[in-house]
Amino acid sequence: MALIVHKYGGTSMGTTERIRNVAKRVAKWVRAGHQLVVVPSAMSGETNRLLGLAKELSPEVVTPPIQRELDAIAATGEQVSVGLLSIALQAEGLEAVSYSGWQVPIRTDSSYTKARIQSIDDARVRADLAAGRVVVITGFQGVDEEDNITTLGRGGSDTSAVAVAAAMKADECLIYTDVDGVYTTDPRIVPEARRMSTISFEEMLEMASLGSKVLQIRSVEFAGKYRVPLRVLSSFTPWDIDINEEAKSGTLITFEEDENMEQAVVSGIAFNRDEAKVTLLGVPDKPGVAFQILGPVADANIDIDVIIQNVSHDGRTDFSFTVHRNDYARTMDLLKNKVAPATGAAQVLGDPKICKVSIVGIGMRSHVGVASKMFQCLSEEGINIQMISTSEIKTSVVIDEKYMELAVRALHKAFDLDQPVQN
Amino acid sequence: MALIVHKYGGTSMGTTERIRNVAKRVAKWVRAGHQLVVVPSAMSGETNRLLGLAKELSPEVVTPPIQRELDAIAATGEQVSVGLLSIALQAEGLEAVSYSGWQVPIRTDSSYTKARIQSIDDARVRADLAAGRVVVITGFQGVDEEDNITTLGRGGSDTSAVAVAAAMKADECLIYTDVDGVYTTDPRIVPEARRMSTISFEEMLEMASLGSKVLQIRSVEFAGKYRVPLRVLSSFTPWDIDINEEAKSGTLITFEEDENMEQAVVSGIAFNRDEAKVTLLGVPDKPGVAFQILGPVADANIDIDVIIQNVSHDGRTDFSFTVHRNDYARTMDLLKNKVAPATGAAQVLGDPKICKVSIVGIGMRSHVGVASKMFQCLSEEGINIQMISTSEIKTSVVIDEKYMELAVRALHKAFDLDQPVQN
Repeated sequence: MALIVHKYGGTSMGTTERIRNVAKRVAKWVRAGHQLVVVPSAMSGETNRLLGLAKELSPEVVTPPIQRELDAIAATGEQVSVGLLSIALQAEGLEAVSYSGWQVPIRTDSSYTKARIQSIDDARVRADLAAGRVVVITGFQGVDEEDNITTLGRGGSDTSAVAVAAAMKADECLIYTDVDGVYTTDPRIVPEARRMSTISFEEMLEMASLGSKVLQIRSVEFAGKYRVPLRVLSSFTPWDIDINEEAKSGTLITFEEDENMEQAVVSGIAFNRDEAKVTLLGVPDKPGVAFQILGPVADANIDIDVIIQNVSHDGRTDFSFTVHRNDYARTMDLLKNKVAPATGAAQVLGDPKICKVSIVGIGMRSHVGVASKMFQCLSEEGINIQMISTSEIKTSVVIDEKYMELAVRALHKAFDLDQPVQN
Repeated sequence: MALIVHKYGGTSMGTTERIRNVAKRVAKWVRAGHQLVVVPSAMSGETNRLLGLAKELSPEVVTPPIQRELDAIAATGEQVSVGLLSIALQAEGLEAVSYSGWQVPIRTDSSYTKARIQSIDDARVRADLAAGRVVVITGFQGVDEEDNITTLGRGGSDTSAVAVAAAMKADECLIYTDVDGVYTTDPRIVPEARRMSTISFEEMLEMASLGSKVLQIRSVEFAGKYRVPLRVLSSFTPWDIDINEEAKSGTLITFEEDENMEQAVVSGIAFNRDEAKVTLLGVPDKPGVAFQILGPVADANIDIDVIIQNVSHDGRTDFSFTVHRNDYARTMDLLKNKVAPATGAAQVLGDPKICKVSIVGIGMRSHVGVASKMFQCLSEEGINIQMISTSEIKTSVVIDEKYMELAVRALHKAFDLDQPVQN
């Protein structure tokens, strides 16, 4: 008997017919002798519908007191889901009980719309499991010290599931989703993309942060911190497929480096086109200039990703960084009207039509020449690299957006990701 | 400065445009110097939508564990309403905060789908009011001792509002609804029906229990128990009508008998066609027979309204009672297969096509001949009376359903209810 956490996304919960299928799948696991905790998302479209109503009433201003209400409103989507799933499980002949985040409770800080989980009291859930019940817990939400409802931000149900699995010391956390695992890259761009049967935690972290949308990054961080065995698998297989086959399907996120992993130098190609590039030309180069530039950007609550500072020339340097594309106009304003005058920069340039393409692989730690192979490949395709950023297990380049698909396909081939893994 | 509780029904909360109008009306009261607690219902149609989803998953079986989930699901309708209204109030420039029943908390017993309020902790609400905030509290729901969400049953938001007003010792509780007050009878049946500017608590209690659907009966009971000044008024007046005019509109439920009331012997005509009549003929008349008949009915959770036992004849009696029409088939089954054999009754008869028409008036206490005037009026219309039931301030008759409108109109005229009240 194992303690298993299942997480189902909004698509899997989209209709009562699909909820019934989720219940049948959960019932299969229970009848195989396991204890089950299930964390479902809101029915697809529901969170948007609810927040749309709120937006009609306050289209622009979003103060903290309004964010508090937005969280209370959005949280109802999952509250409905857990109730419906619990009813469906009971209709399948199981005992089941649902809890909202506050009932467990799942305690968070008070950062409305992007709260972080601080603790989970598992006493009530354990008692239910011991009594033979399936426990269904709302994803996406918790409650702060003053009993205000908070939400964890988009995709937060992944994090809820992993956090519950961590708190309960679950044997495995299964994330059922609309893809059947983690791929070497997005199969919509590269049809030859291959599903990985395992991926290391560090690689998954890079893939998630670099734009692979299979898992919310905070859920991966959580899994890493508490070493929660995490599996991403398809919710579209028939509910009655063999449980042993299902238990091995998808992609397992692992914490030990095995020999297979050493063989794949590069495991995957990640990309995103959500970013924009801004550049300050001719900034007088003196100590503290980076802070002078980025301080006001951070104060404006704008997240910065890649940062490049060129070597200085005649006492002046060029300084580039990328921000989310939604923040592009605001960032350009800030640089032109505030930062450039303050730092004495000669010129402000901007380009929203860029993308970031990254190779990720734990094997890069012990292999040299991986980055240069990447650059060679892009050069052969005539793609100009605008910015480069590296870490121990990934190399990212910023290039013109129009080359994105070409770059991803070329790199996928250059690193043999379309070939079967050799064991 | 007064402390006022406003309650708005689902129609008033039906769209964001209407919610904005509710916010403007509340703002008017706040700007006139009052402290406001607002209790809104779910957006119209929402509770039915949610329970419809649940019903798709478990069409027939409704066990207590499923009722628990139904309550958690249905409660989200009001949770969304309070969040939206709080946002609309903030958009109007007020400070506002919403609470679900469990956050106040409003404690109830654990009778899912028909819970009763046991206590309300007003500390948090008072602190918000003192800080200048409008407090928006979910109607219809509470939380039991084990932190399970409960609901109070259909129309429960009226009861929530009155209970909150009682706990806070509010100066007045205003029930904004889609009628503009309490009428001498339903204006859809009798166009001459007149709105009463006041009605005594006892009369309101009879009107509510006899079928006038303006207020949930439990809210009237609550108002009586705690002497909460309660006013029913229209939510369809323009939000910006003069506040003094609005404050005097609708119908006030009063607790003192003034002279005006003494003059109106009959205040209103109530009616309902939700009932069915069943009769046991030739029951051997011995001590305990009423319990032998009604015990099994009560055990089957069937509510009984009017009960008539005829005088005994040759040691046998006839026994009739009415039940809700939804319980008619079940009651007939029970009587035929269980009660009749056990009591030795000769025959079981039933008639679902009946209605109950009642005259209500606190003046009946001190006037004789009111009931006989009623019977004379019906006799003149050729309407046969099947059952009669009386209390201190009402007389009800059960008649053939097809005579309902005729009876109501004739009684309304006979008791001069279409005439202006003489002061």
